Amino acid sequence: MTSLLYQKIASQLAEDIQSGVYQPGERVPSVRKLSTQKGVSHATVLQAYATLEDQGLIHARPQSGYYVHQTPALTAPTPAIARVEAPYAVTRSSIITEILLQARRDGVIPLGAAVPSSEFLPLRALHQQMSKVTRFHAQKAFSYTFSPGYEPLRRQVAIRMRDAGAVIDPANVVITNGCVEALQLSLRAVTKPGDLIATESPSYYGLVQLCELLDLKVVEIPSDPDTGLSLETLQSALDQWPIKALVLTSRAGNPMGATMPEHRQRKLVAMMARRNLPVIEDDIYGELMFDHGQSKALKAFDCSDTVIYCSSFSKTISPGLRAGWLITKRYQEQIEKLQTFTTLSACSVSQMAVAAYLENGGYDRHLRHIRQEYCKNLSLFQLAVQQFFPEGTQITRPKGGFILWISLPGGVDTLTLFNRALQHNISICPGVVFSNSDQFNHCLRLNCGIPWNRAAEQAVMTLGVLAKQLLQELEPVERGVELEGIRKVS
Amino acid sequence: MTSLLYQKIASQLAEDIQSGVYQPGERVPSVRKLSTQKGVSHATVLQAYATLEDQGLIHARPQSGYYVHQTPALTAPTPAIARVEAPYAVTRSSIITEILLQARRDGVIPLGAAVPSSEFLPLRALHQQMSKVTRFHAQKAFSYTFSPGYEPLRRQVAIRMRDAGAVIDPANVVITNGCVEALQLSLRAVTKPGDLIATESPSYYGLVQLCELLDLKVVEIPSDPDTGLSLETLQSALDQWPIKALVLTSRAGNPMGATMPEHRQRKLVAMMARRNLPVIEDDIYGELMFDHGQSKALKAFDCSDTVIYCSSFSKTISPGLRAGWLITKRYQEQIEKLQTFTTLSACSVSQMAVAAYLENGGYDRHLRHIRQEYCKNLSLFQLAVQQFFPEGTQITRPKGGFILWISLPGGVDTLTLFNRALQHNISICPGVVFSNSDQFNHCLRLNCGIPWNRAAEQAVMTLGVLAKQLLQELEPVERGVELEGIRKVS
Repeated sequence: MTSLLYQKIASQLAEDIQSGVYQPGERVPSVRKLSTQKGVSHATVLQAYATLEDQGLIHARPQSGYYVHQTPALTAPTPAIARVEAPYAVTRSSIITEILLQARRDGVIPLGAAVPSSEFLPLRALHQQMSKVTRFHAQKAFSYTFSPGYEPLRRQVAIRMRDAGAVIDPANVVITNGCVEALQLSLRAVTKPGDLIATESPSYYGLVQLCELLDLKVVEIPSDPDTGLSLETLQSALDQWPIKALVLTSRAGNPMGATMPEHRQRKLVAMMARRNLPVIEDDIYGELMFDHGQSKALKAFDCSDTVIYCSSFSKTISPGLRAGWLITKRYQEQIEKLQTFTTLSACSVSQMAVAAYLENGGYDRHLRHIRQEYCKNLSLFQLAVQQFFPEGTQITRPKGGFILWISLPGGVDTLTLFNRALQHNISICPGVVFSNSDQFNHCLRLNCGIPWNRAAEQAVMTLGVLAKQLLQELEPVERGVELEGIRKVS
Repeated sequence: MTSLLYQKIASQLAEDIQSGVYQPGERVPSVRKLSTQKGVSHATVLQAYATLEDQGLIHARPQSGYYVHQTPALTAPTPAIARVEAPYAVTRSSIITEILLQARRDGVIPLGAAVPSSEFLPLRALHQQMSKVTRFHAQKAFSYTFSPGYEPLRRQVAIRMRDAGAVIDPANVVITNGCVEALQLSLRAVTKPGDLIATESPSYYGLVQLCELLDLKVVEIPSDPDTGLSLETLQSALDQWPIKALVLTSRAGNPMGATMPEHRQRKLVAMMARRNLPVIEDDIYGELMFDHGQSKALKAFDCSDTVIYCSSFSKTISPGLRAGWLITKRYQEQIEKLQTFTTLSACSVSQMAVAAYLENGGYDRHLRHIRQEYCKNLSLFQLAVQQFFPEGTQITRPKGGFILWISLPGGVDTLTLFNRALQHNISICPGVVFSNSDQFNHCLRLNCGIPWNRAAEQAVMTLGVLAKQLLQELEPVERGVELEGIRKVS
């Protein structure tokens, strides 16, 4: 793929910033100057600068110009890759439910659930669309919109899928009650109770719960915090066990934020297509990739209708509207039937308001804004964790989204950390919920989709103090003294 | 139960109308006159007249008074009760899906699906609430509202349940994506694949589909068009087979419109409670009972948490908002878990807008209006069917809701009628979708939730002509000549 002119200019400047040509806090060349230097239009330079803003490398100061972000370097290493375990029946959903319920208390600083703070939602625009739609199209808005959903929204989804590199026929888009329903319908369509599926390790807890509900056995394939699912392990798992489907996120994964390089995405889709095995792609953070428009969804490489693509507007527009979607041709008829039987359809007003908002053109501007905020937030959280957490803590480096995955040293049990943090009115997501194995019991996930302020910083500091305390309590064990019954984690 | 003063007056007048003391088209006594006659207040008489209006017996003419409806008598008999069949695995969902899809064409007169026409929805009020909620409570409206749902709506539901005779703790109300999700979650909570449940015969096709999806075996208990489920047959079925749960509608059933007398409701709940078997009550037409406030839900007689109550606002406020609910204490935790795993929650905006509408007080007035309209519509449709359909046609007499069930003579196949009617741009719901047996292949359901006008009358006339043609085609068989392959129906 040849990159566009503005992308070239942006990447040259990014290199200059990373190599120190432009220091943190310094001004980069003015638009006028750079356009003369490179012999390109002002618009091209502006586009390049917008890209760098999205990546969190520079920021604009009104009437002054663009400046390099003033951020110290992140030196903490990324967490290690997990080991593969044999297939098992999922049994963890009760613990997960319990943990999620506890964390949902009023007044806690919500670093647990991956929910964007309402500061990052286009509330005013949504109100306007909602009001218009229910006034001028009330008949439609309050009547049933049967599966596969509201046609203009399906068209808008197809248009947006271009940014993910996929050319989609709107006819193959099914609107769902959020991404959860999309995943559930997809899994139901390609499996029957007792079947074995492959998932990432660690993976989204909702998927762990779904597998238990649908009585599916799971083999967890280790995922690298940078490059995602291990294709080598997947290959050998496919050879070894009767796997019926693979569920994964190939961009800004949850919880690790991994993004697969394009050549591995291609290879993965080809590998699964050769075996005629469906891939369920959860791309819910796709529109929050900081290099938006460059990285692609797996669906982009899907020539043989192998990939069932699932996503939603819950992380970008509104969680409460329950507007998700899936894309498949092969399983579409079956999925529409399943949806009709179980929930009938998604909410008409939601579908119409989201469609109107997308048609109206404010969405790209909004996305650019929140991408920039999340990118900034991630680095602020990363640095705070590096500063306050015990030595030996490892942190992921997501290329999109708003969640961080943290690995604590010395076998600190994050479920204990979770309980102690709640006493300080801070919720986190302990590693135990992201796998049916005990491999991530020393890890935790942080939601960085909240405004960074004094309270957020204080919360990270408190978590650091609590983690250090836990580590100290464990020290006898580190020195070889056995304390039976204290630790479940090796 | 002692009836109130206004109810006594209303029932005396109703008797006078039915016995011909007041003839169709005649004026009934003025409010002033009757209040003097009976020695009661004007308000009491007005309330009595409002009740009679709800029942479709009289109507008000502005500045003139109240008049007896000008309607000829309905002389067609009600359909006969079905026979009981042994349990079976459900296999009919594909045909049902096919039929429903075909009927969903643009431009057809929608006498098939039981969907209220938008003329009967409070569109303006909903727009106003939607607009207010998304403006003044945008943060909440566009964020997640987790299972069990929005507290003020759950409170409103509990208040409304008083009209159904049930005293409910709002804490036990779970808001769902429509009644379909309520039924699905309830069934999932009380059964596992392969289990046997009892349903009514005929019953709502969505339930037939659900049973196939959940791999449930079914024993269909015959239901009387007037008094509902046969308790005697239920009793012997319970003795004979390992039934795990019963699903039924005890008021204004679908498709037959049957309403169980209160003593049978009590008996049913006691019978199931004694065996500790759950009853899933689908009361979606409960608020559309023409004697609203008098008839009760099964839940009203549920002292031992036997009944899981399911309903929604789809037939009264808006189908498109997907706002349903269920009530249970015993299975609540499990159901919330199931909902969280499969759809996460219902749409926040919908929940808040409906709650605001209910709090605002316009709902009762709206209900009174549509009850009256539906009652009038039902009798207009009944009379038209009696006029245009073949001799021997049987018609139900629902005490609420807006659907009619019609039984055709001589084994006319209503699936053929469905196909021919579609060619005339009329959709109906053929009997085949309401059971897994072939007992109702000569029946059909008519949606009377559309405005009665020339087009509606024309449609009923066309259906009558088509039914007569079908009957004529069958005549050789009636005369004893066998025509192989033409009829599936005995």
